[in-house]
Amino acid sequence: MNYITAGESHGPQETAIIQGIPAGLTLTTADINKELARRQKAYGRGQRQKIETDQIEFLSGIRHQVTLGSPITLVVKNLDYQNWQEIMDPYQKINLNNSRRQVLRPRPGHADLVGAMKYRQHLDLRNILERSSARETTMRVAVGAVAKKLLKELGIDIHGFVSQIGSIKTPISLLAKYHTLDQVRQVSEQFLTRTLDATTDKAMKAAIDQAKKDGDTLGGTVCVLATGVMPGLGSYVSADTKLDAKIAQSLIGINAFKGVDFGFGFANADKKGSELMDEIFWSPKRGFYRGSNHLGGFEGGMTTGEMIVVRGLIKPIPTLYQPLRSVNIQTHQEQKASIERSDTTAVTAGAVIAESMVAIVLAQEILAQFDTNSLQRLKEQVAVYRQEIRDF
Amino acid sequence: MNYITAGESHGPQETAIIQGIPAGLTLTTADINKELARRQKAYGRGQRQKIETDQIEFLSGIRHQVTLGSPITLVVKNLDYQNWQEIMDPYQKINLNNSRRQVLRPRPGHADLVGAMKYRQHLDLRNILERSSARETTMRVAVGAVAKKLLKELGIDIHGFVSQIGSIKTPISLLAKYHTLDQVRQVSEQFLTRTLDATTDKAMKAAIDQAKKDGDTLGGTVCVLATGVMPGLGSYVSADTKLDAKIAQSLIGINAFKGVDFGFGFANADKKGSELMDEIFWSPKRGFYRGSNHLGGFEGGMTTGEMIVVRGLIKPIPTLYQPLRSVNIQTHQEQKASIERSDTTAVTAGAVIAESMVAIVLAQEILAQFDTNSLQRLKEQVAVYRQEIRDF
Amino acid sequence: MNYITAGESHGPQETAIIQGIPAGLTLTTADINKELARRQKAYGRGQRQKIETDQIEFLSGIRHQVTLGSPITLVVKNLDYQNWQEIMDPYQKINLNNSRRQVLRPRPGHADLVGAMKYRQHLDLRNILERSSARETTMRVAVGAVAKKLLKELGIDIHGFVSQIGSIKTPISLLAKYHTLDQVRQVSEQFLTRTLDATTDKAMKAAIDQAKKDGDTLGGTVCVLATGVMPGLGSYVSADTKLDAKIAQSLIGINAFKGVDFGFGFANADKKGSELMDEIFWSPKRGFYRGSNHLGGFEGGMTTGEMIVVRGLIKPIPTLYQPLRSVNIQTHQEQKASIERSDTTAVTAGAVIAESMVAIVLAQEILAQFDTNSLQRLKEQVAVYRQEIRDF
Amino acid sequence: MNYITAGESHGPQETAIIQGIPAGLTLTTADINKELARRQKAYGRGQRQKIETDQIEFLSGIRHQVTLGSPITLVVKNLDYQNWQEIMDPYQKINLNNSRRQVLRPRPGHADLVGAMKYRQHLDLRNILERSSARETTMRVAVGAVAKKLLKELGIDIHGFVSQIGSIKTPISLLAKYHTLDQVRQVSEQFLTRTLDATTDKAMKAAIDQAKKDGDTLGGTVCVLATGVMPGLGSYVSADTKLDAKIAQSLIGINAFKGVDFGFGFANADKKGSELMDEIFWSPKRGFYRGSNHLGGFEGGMTTGEMIVVRGLIKPIPTLYQPLRSVNIQTHQEQKASIERSDTTAVTAGAVIAESMVAIVLAQEILAQFDTNSLQRLKEQVAVYRQEIRDF
Repeated sequence: MNYITAGESHGPQETAIIQGIPAGLTLTTADINKELARRQKAYGRGQRQKIETDQIEFLSGIRHQVTLGSPITLVVKNLDYQNWQEIMDPYQKINLNNSRRQVLRPRPGHADLVGAMKYRQHLDLRNILERSSARETTMRVAVGAVAKKLLKELGIDIHGFVSQIGSIKTPISLLAKYHTLDQVRQVSEQFLTRTLDATTDKAMKAAIDQAKKDGDTLGGTVCVLATGVMPGLGSYVSADTKLDAKIAQSLIGINAFKGVDFGFGFANADKKGSELMDEIFWSPKRGFYRGSNHLGGFEGGMTTGEMIVVRGLIKPIPTLYQPLRSVNIQTHQEQKASIERSDTTAVTAGAVIAESMVAIVLAQEILAQFDTNSLQRLKEQVAVYRQEIRDF
Repeated sequence: MNYITAGESHGPQETAIIQGIPAGLTLTTADINKELARRQKAYGRGQRQKIETDQIEFLSGIRHQVTLGSPITLVVKNLDYQNWQEIMDPYQKINLNNSRRQVLRPRPGHADLVGAMKYRQHLDLRNILERSSARETTMRVAVGAVAKKLLKELGIDIHGFVSQIGSIKTPISLLAKYHTLDQVRQVSEQFLTRTLDATTDKAMKAAIDQAKKDGDTLGGTVCVLATGVMPGLGSYVSADTKLDAKIAQSLIGINAFKGVDFGFGFANADKKGSELMDEIFWSPKRGFYRGSNHLGGFEGGMTTGEMIVVRGLIKPIPTLYQPLRSVNIQTHQEQKASIERSDTTAVTAGAVIAESMVAIVLAQEILAQFDTNSLQRLKEQVAVYRQEIRDF
Repeated sequence: MNYITAGESHGPQETAIIQGIPAGLTLTTADINKELARRQKAYGRGQRQKIETDQIEFLSGIRHQVTLGSPITLVVKNLDYQNWQEIMDPYQKINLNNSRRQVLRPRPGHADLVGAMKYRQHLDLRNILERSSARETTMRVAVGAVAKKLLKELGIDIHGFVSQIGSIKTPISLLAKYHTLDQVRQVSEQFLTRTLDATTDKAMKAAIDQAKKDGDTLGGTVCVLATGVMPGLGSYVSADTKLDAKIAQSLIGINAFKGVDFGFGFANADKKGSELMDEIFWSPKRGFYRGSNHLGGFEGGMTTGEMIVVRGLIKPIPTLYQPLRSVNIQTHQEQKASIERSDTTAVTAGAVIAESMVAIVLAQEILAQFDTNSLQRLKEQVAVYRQEIRDF
Repeated sequence: MNYITAGESHGPQETAIIQGIPAGLTLTTADINKELARRQKAYGRGQRQKIETDQIEFLSGIRHQVTLGSPITLVVKNLDYQNWQEIMDPYQKINLNNSRRQVLRPRPGHADLVGAMKYRQHLDLRNILERSSARETTMRVAVGAVAKKLLKELGIDIHGFVSQIGSIKTPISLLAKYHTLDQVRQVSEQFLTRTLDATTDKAMKAAIDQAKKDGDTLGGTVCVLATGVMPGLGSYVSADTKLDAKIAQSLIGINAFKGVDFGFGFANADKKGSELMDEIFWSPKRGFYRGSNHLGGFEGGMTTGEMIVVRGLIKPIPTLYQPLRSVNIQTHQEQKASIERSDTTAVTAGAVIAESMVAIVLAQEILAQFDTNSLQRLKEQVAVYRQEIRDF
């Protein structure tokens, strides 16, 4: 399974094509739209989310709600395009007097300046920022929703929540209260900050409000959990077969993500070997299992069968309403950076996007190891494999 | 440029084949051996390093010290193989009475148990651990040495040092004292812990000594810096084009690495947007440049031209001389985990391996963007590009 | 540069996303539409081409007629979808009484039967044939048109014509009459059979008419020529770097293509070494050149700078109006194969599709070897390279 | 499964690393050596084969004759290296007076000239021809032998024979005499020309003798057959999923291969649709089957379950003992092309190499669709799949 996304932020639409989803998977627009709504629903988001209510369209690969095995085309229309049509028009040559929305003052922290150097864009940084915008993550959430539907058929559940915004941290020990991932989902999805309790939610909202007032922005961390994952996905045999490494790439590949760890690793950097390894047990009923999960569900680049615990670090959004110093790319004069409509924090949406990426990578790995053609055959193969592991 | 490594820890040799190194690069055994020696020279290493003094052999792709453009075969012989020949012999069927060195008690934290499940190895976990051993990283350092030689021709320097072992942290502020990466190299390479000052070196050694005495192990963090990198490597246009994401994969792909961040991101998670973005300036002499480097040399998944700063988190070595609880895979009885000859900490060697991986990824990206065939043509193209960026 | 296509034959649309086209390439709908029209214009085509007049839409990656460097979304609407909406609808569950257009009798020679086995489709072979239809080649022609526009900027021209339909062969010796590829284009495009002279055109038309009358179909061969290709694309260093091999894959990857050769190889199988090798000459003006081009522009998997000459063999269309014996997949009873609306021969359209694939592969190879980011920089690099080769 | 080969023709050794062979496959040196011997045993080979008796070494990935799932290192030493050590030495700088075996007159038809341009080798064409030599195919045969051992475990047999040398054609109708592929193997392997009967063998030998006497060389065609292949390998869903296309690439990727067809396609170019399609039948015992196999075992890019029939066209060896005209790359003077020790025809060895490539591609496709980790699990999955197809 692989996919490509396409689309500029104020262009006509966002598109994704997914190749390699097995035939026989039931997919409805509701399956995707509910995840798109989760991405949009977040404290600290700006104006754009009020214009758009993202709705998925299926344009290939699905017939009567069931996948065919052929490439799936997903589209989300940009409703805002009607306001930008002339500016973003693909078909007409540019009118030399049409300098509306031209961008010449690159924003520190965004792709603006380096992107322009790389692609030789001296006339308008919009040619960069329209694609580097996080609007693109809409389609990763859409692809992730397809992946999650597939994983659900195999007994795998995934959820992302917010573990820190600015200086406010979610008390991670709260996780111990819940027995299923669905309970964590119930709790975190009730808060607009996607944290785990009301007190933290309140504090995070206050921090976001203050930052907004200051024309500033906040970063933080998100945590993705996955349960029901069979042991033995990924491999130790070569560097490029390690599954945790692929997850790391997928998370850092999200706009603004600057760090990743497994099992809250950076917080445990000073722990000793005797404190961190997950001891091995066996019972007739469960087969092999662990007494703890400090390593976040991975050993030797492979899933252990324990819950996957991976954290992503998100930098503050670089677009500041109190802009930083920059330089006009045409005059080389110092000027304040330009401002594009933006949010105060991307962390809450980031939890959904990170969750989507983990889902995509897990689906890719499972489809590389098991059958890619028929969902039914895939389920049979996975069931046989799970039994074999349990009997090991 | 791509590569494969092969070899079991106590097999006859470690092998790597590299494809896509341009013709015309001068390579001597000294270029590689000095890096192999750096990997071996580290406080807290065990017995194996006394047996091996890794020496590279060139078996293809190089003629009269110069690369041909054809695949390069690198070999490091395992001197210890003479002690393991019968146990690891590829050519003879196993003697049923030959149970020497058979491993049945998986070590928590290693690939032993899950690897055996995945590859259906019920008889001997050695069939897993011989390959999952960090002995394989020898070849990544060798490949990395080739990459570094190439990068040096293009004016790019890379160095890795240790930023934390156990609870002892290197004072990062010391970096501000040095004007070139070579100075950092001079300083850190004089300490067996690869830290930045004598006080920390002493404290780290004491911590390692204590852990060894306790039959325990230590983790920590390493930091890799790269200077002279041209802006515009990697891209924002798609998830799989982001270069920081590829570096993240390459680091997590090293044995025991559990986390990665850029610009010391996890330590700055509570910073605001106004504190973290690197303001943009321009001067006739330098062209565009930044006033700071909080983002570790990346914006939008692309290099900015500032120093790359990436950190890797290393877990403690799972092999404990005071072993943890485990289960015999044949009897399903609880037993102590097995012990393979091992080190007390992998952090100091980890700095060299992480440095190697960053070098490999940078070389790959440069060779994807510029000429792959002739070093001379590559240098010419890079020079033209650097001038173009300076004139932007 | 890479791409994915998607779309069912009677679904709402055909879609392609192209990644890795440099920024700065001018693209208009006319550039694409003229190639789509060439694919549709052919003697021996059936009813479908009268319903569709394929028109391209740009939905990302292009602004004001210029590529941005970001992924390009191309769409061609299926006008016939309005007649098939209920049958192909992605959004609604299937109505059990809706058996309209259900297909149960697999057509020998098509993907119907094996596709159904692979994807476990017991209920309707339409779930296979909608995607295996040659309708998909619309998008390869569209992507090929983008590639051709890029190659044109670099001085490379490509053209495909028909060399055989049924038992009627184009006299290949006619090629010697023309000095430029454009002349070959002028000649062949004036015939609805895409052959090289009026006599052959007439004979081919008669053969097609007769086959149609018989409810039968015809195959044949097409020939693609490319001029202006720089020497040294592809490489001998490894099996997967040979460019002629990639072209072979791209041609056999077209529906109905069953063979490929270079320099009319199969016709020259009995020639001796002394007859076939292209002797090497040098002049101050031209640099190195050849006295002949029997090898079709390739030596050692690399372009020689001589004209690329590659031929594709196309089998007759398997859908016969006098259908062959088959078996109902639900009853296992012998029945005549089903009939989908179809053409009498695909050879004339095949010339355009083959031409498109060669263009795509050449563009991919050039973009792998030279700059992928900016058309201007690409042109500069190619110019420097061409000069270097001329001065060799 | 993927692999890299490395090694220069007169360097110390040829090396291959294979990644992704399942654990549990029994491999002995005899398995590989017998195939290496087949490649060497051929009428029309030159002196080199008398120096070398290729012997495989296992240097990783195999323990006690069984694969571990980790990368497999295969080595064949070049015995001739002892005569070339100084000339090919990787470790010492070139001695300026050491011009022994320097090559300056490129051979038409070989990679010499274009390779030198591409890799900027003005001083010695040996830097090209050492790698472009067909000596490299030794390792493809070795890797192919591993693939064939794997396929044999799954009930798949593959064999290549010679269908034409120079103007002498093997009577293909002879194939109808044999009921199993093993019978074809018995027959063809008894002839040094690898044809199917004594008369043709004699004629081919005479043609080779005459060409040798003339200082000339011969080409021809080879044919590879595969039986026991399950239906449904490869797919129609996208251009890059078609398995026949991958086989085409793999054959054209062999030195000197200039054409490929399926089901003797080029010989059937004038056949009608009604003559070529393979009608579909069903019986309770066999499930679905075909009445003929004109399409060579493929429909829609997928295996049909019928015998794979693929032909490769091989050009005459370009090295002529009566050399063609060429140009000295340093003086630009016209001179006769240089001569490297060479064979009179590569066709007989080509049959073995083509067979190896088909084996590799089939193994890759099977391992992409089924389990890659454990041979036992792979066999179980394939058995379930075969039953499912039989019951379709």
